[in-house]
Amino acid sequence: MKGIVDPGGAVGTSLFGGAFTFPVMVARRSALEHNIATLATFTREYGMIFAPHAKTTMSPELIEAQLEAGAWGMTVATPSQALTLREFGVPRIVLANQVFDPAGLNALAAQLTADETFEFLCFVDSAAGVETLSRHAGTRPFRVLAELGHPGGRGGSRTLEHLLEVASAAQAADGVELAGVAGYEGSLGSAGEVRAYLHRLLEALEHLRVRDPILSVGGSQWFDVIGRELVTCPARVMLRSGAYVSHDDGYYRERTPYTRMDGELRAALEIWAHVLSVPEPGLAVVGFGKRDAPFDEGLPIPRGAVADATVLKVQDQHAVLRLAPGSPVRPGDLVSFGISHPCTAFDKWRVMPVVDDDHVVVGLLNTFF
Amino acid sequence: MKGIVDPGGAVGTSLFGGAFTFPVMVARRSALEHNIATLATFTREYGMIFAPHAKTTMSPELIEAQLEAGAWGMTVATPSQALTLREFGVPRIVLANQVFDPAGLNALAAQLTADETFEFLCFVDSAAGVETLSRHAGTRPFRVLAELGHPGGRGGSRTLEHLLEVASAAQAADGVELAGVAGYEGSLGSAGEVRAYLHRLLEALEHLRVRDPILSVGGSQWFDVIGRELVTCPARVMLRSGAYVSHDDGYYRERTPYTRMDGELRAALEIWAHVLSVPEPGLAVVGFGKRDAPFDEGLPIPRGAVADATVLKVQDQHAVLRLAPGSPVRPGDLVSFGISHPCTAFDKWRVMPVVDDDHVVVGLLNTFF
Repeated sequence: MKGIVDPGGAVGTSLFGGAFTFPVMVARRSALEHNIATLATFTREYGMIFAPHAKTTMSPELIEAQLEAGAWGMTVATPSQALTLREFGVPRIVLANQVFDPAGLNALAAQLTADETFEFLCFVDSAAGVETLSRHAGTRPFRVLAELGHPGGRGGSRTLEHLLEVASAAQAADGVELAGVAGYEGSLGSAGEVRAYLHRLLEALEHLRVRDPILSVGGSQWFDVIGRELVTCPARVMLRSGAYVSHDDGYYRERTPYTRMDGELRAALEIWAHVLSVPEPGLAVVGFGKRDAPFDEGLPIPRGAVADATVLKVQDQHAVLRLAPGSPVRPGDLVSFGISHPCTAFDKWRVMPVVDDDHVVVGLLNTFF
Repeated sequence: MKGIVDPGGAVGTSLFGGAFTFPVMVARRSALEHNIATLATFTREYGMIFAPHAKTTMSPELIEAQLEAGAWGMTVATPSQALTLREFGVPRIVLANQVFDPAGLNALAAQLTADETFEFLCFVDSAAGVETLSRHAGTRPFRVLAELGHPGGRGGSRTLEHLLEVASAAQAADGVELAGVAGYEGSLGSAGEVRAYLHRLLEALEHLRVRDPILSVGGSQWFDVIGRELVTCPARVMLRSGAYVSHDDGYYRERTPYTRMDGELRAALEIWAHVLSVPEPGLAVVGFGKRDAPFDEGLPIPRGAVADATVLKVQDQHAVLRLAPGSPVRPGDLVSFGISHPCTAFDKWRVMPVVDDDHVVVGLLNTFF
């Protein structure tokens, strides 16, 4: 198993004690616990229901902690992720897309039939999507949120008129039940744009005749604006943030709402690897690469002994560093890096040790991508 | 399991028959078999020994096929990958780096002690690397190749003098045995540069007193030049190409030696996903993303019904396409894409169906990243 030579003997030992092989990515328990508690409190205080996006971690241990902290349910991106979460025992799942996958829908319909406490929601933005759900529904309907998009965004109706047509189709279709509206504000560039978009969602909601409707939004960049704007919303407001759970030292560090309000999230993930070679003065090759750490929304961030180095590039299995002048770094040094973009970090590890602040391993996170 | 809802009933059915959930990445058997046979023949004809890089696939089924086709052994990038290949039963392993990882070296030393038929080679480019191996060696020595680098490259001595110092240190150290020289030509930009680099490796080899020496090189871009230049080399020439096994429709398609010589490699990998939304005329959101297909050396290449579309961007779980004017593509369509860069394709899937040319599933590849 990548990162571990002795899974049985790993917990309770130091990360550097011999049970782990490098490179290895670790998660700090203190940061995970802080972040889970912080968003649980935030959503509770603003009267939201919380369905954290499980795609970030796909880790049963973290999902259990999020549910125990009060999350209403979990969000996923694919039928396959929904089915994996059902194996974890998650009772409420939001699939934040329109869905066409026949095998996935059949399996989800079977889950709805088999367990009447299972709550499942997905998005629709077309008559074709509604028809597909209707065709695959079992004894209980597929509950749907009509998705509102915006220019430059992903899916979702681009006009109120179109959204209302789709909503009407959902209300008319056998095996489909309209439950509210949904959107995604994460690709918008300013608080003003987010506010305008939220008001379009509220306007859409006003036109729907739905009992106890849901209004679902959410990433990890604008939940402050969402909280303020929707605190008086008559619907149940559902937030779907995912990346907050581990946070990061790059992309989300710069974009978190906590740059604009009191409080903080804490970066939980770090990768450790050996310096494999210093083949030229000032150049170091480190033993981790694209297989081990995210590189798509910023390169890893050197820490400690290499804090003043620059990551020049990452290759499949290596990172190449420009060292600061006079750096004492030499082959064999064990060095660490923060990461940018949690969603492409967890998916590179099947098992990740959880460490305390002294790097004693206090548990293991499994992931199921 | 991502991509499969019914692993037991998958083999023998159509990819589109209900055992698979989308997105799913598949490998074409005909292309895999062709590629494995092609490089087996090429290396045999040029008198090379072949240690294909297993990091590309980390798949026991493909590694077994490569060994059965005549590969001398397999190459890896980390101690963890070496230990995983030992679990697969691979008898000869080349770790194409200098190695400092204590737990990994201890486990490899134990493997050498436990199985005297196990052959293991790794690289050294510093006295520190030699000392580390010496400290961790068990009853059998760590056999090493002195690595020669080049400016702009990764690890490896930058001068002949430095390489000979490291080689002397290896010959003097307890628990270490010098077996030859190694290099990596994949980051060089022209055939002329590759030839000059190979001649520096030959020059290094001439200075070493090693019985039955090995000269190891290799990626998937320059094996034609390597074959021609080293065909009269007195050492055993070891090629380490990895990406050839699946080839691709992007990066390697443009760079394969078969652009310069007779024959071909065939792209084996393709990803299938549903169009989830067509929210604006000409814009399609497809249900696969960074989690599912490589994006680091070229974006996925649309095929079939979307062959004239352009992939604008990939997000964690989605690809956004600009459709050609008048495209009939609509939500729910199942579409396919070729990929660029196999090394970041296999690592996104724990199980990948192998299909015949009619997309009947003829087997499953497991991966162990």
